[in-house]
Amino acid sequence: MGSRGIESRRRLEQAALKLYRHHGYGEITAAQIAERAGLTERTFFRHFADKREMLFANGSAMEQLAIRAIQDAAPAPAFQLAITGLRAVAPLFEEHPDLVRERQRIIDAHVDLQERELTKRNQFSDAIGTALRDVGASDTAAALTGALAGVVFHDAFVRWLREPTRELAAVIDESASSVRQLTAMPVTQS
Amino acid sequence: MGSRGIESRRRLEQAALKLYRHHGYGEITAAQIAERAGLTERTFFRHFADKREMLFANGSAMEQLAIRAIQDAAPAPAFQLAITGLRAVAPLFEEHPDLVRERQRIIDAHVDLQERELTKRNQFSDAIGTALRDVGASDTAAALTGALAGVVFHDAFVRWLREPTRELAAVIDESASSVRQLTAMPVTQS
Repeated sequence: MGSRGIESRRRLEQAALKLYRHHGYGEITAAQIAERAGLTERTFFRHFADKREMLFANGSAMEQLAIRAIQDAAPAPAFQLAITGLRAVAPLFEEHPDLVRERQRIIDAHVDLQERELTKRNQFSDAIGTALRDVGASDTAAALTGALAGVVFHDAFVRWLREPTRELAAVIDESASSVRQLTAMPVTQS
Repeated sequence: MGSRGIESRRRLEQAALKLYRHHGYGEITAAQIAERAGLTERTFFRHFADKREMLFANGSAMEQLAIRAIQDAAPAPAFQLAITGLRAVAPLFEEHPDLVRERQRIIDAHVDLQERELTKRNQFSDAIGTALRDVGASDTAAALTGALAGVVFHDAFVRWLREPTRELAAVIDESASSVRQLTAMPVTQS
């Protein structure tokens, strides 16, 4: 996508969040979002499948950043590679922290958006798992590490939403450390 | 629920899976399932909100078993308690391994059921997190350990589907060990 395309997307996203804030997510149509952004409805649908999908449009950018970082850092232990992938995603969120927070408030208020968010989180975990397999991790280690990376990222993201002045990458490292500490205890048969 | 209620549920579930196998999940109505089970449609809806929800009806039983096991085993480190909770759930699946497999094939073939499954997995993680908090874990440790338990259970469940003769509780212990080994490596800043 060229810089004009990126600019259009950004304008549509900002217009949408502004309209949702004043009228509620449920009340607003794609046509209204396009109008507010000074663009055509056709432009809206060139960028987004629908209003719901618009809120999750950064999913593929997240995957691309994580996958590239994993490829660049390999070979290394799978969990370490996964965390490196997560850290590479942080700038996407840090660029526009207010938009990220506003978007999250909307998702948290709508059950269907929460379901979609879980699906997107799952896709992100799968993408990391696939990238790990592609750089040599076993199938089982790759899938499990991808799922763990999803947990780490979500934990860090939720913490970061509450502490917006911190670097997301640093919070990701903290969450990864918490996972290591929590699981360090041998599990005894009960 | 009395033993007659449990028996009705079981008959409805078995009738549904049989009909899905021959006609496809999409073609079958609640009325047809009830008829096949020799029960009324009203009985169906006394047990299940709809056809989709029927496939996830064991969610609350899973939560109850896990929560009780966590309460019984506390105090202990959070991850260890969580794994004890997961092991307590295993009999629910081991009782009817063929039904579990058939149900999973249906879910895997339908995107909307996969979304619902993710929601249910998330609810199970949340329930474990809440149980851990109730026995004294900090908010952050409880939520993160609940999420990790969800990952461990899903990993074990997928492995167990491929190795039906093994004890699910033993596979859960293996998955927990894998998580510990994968995350044991300190994460170095890259």
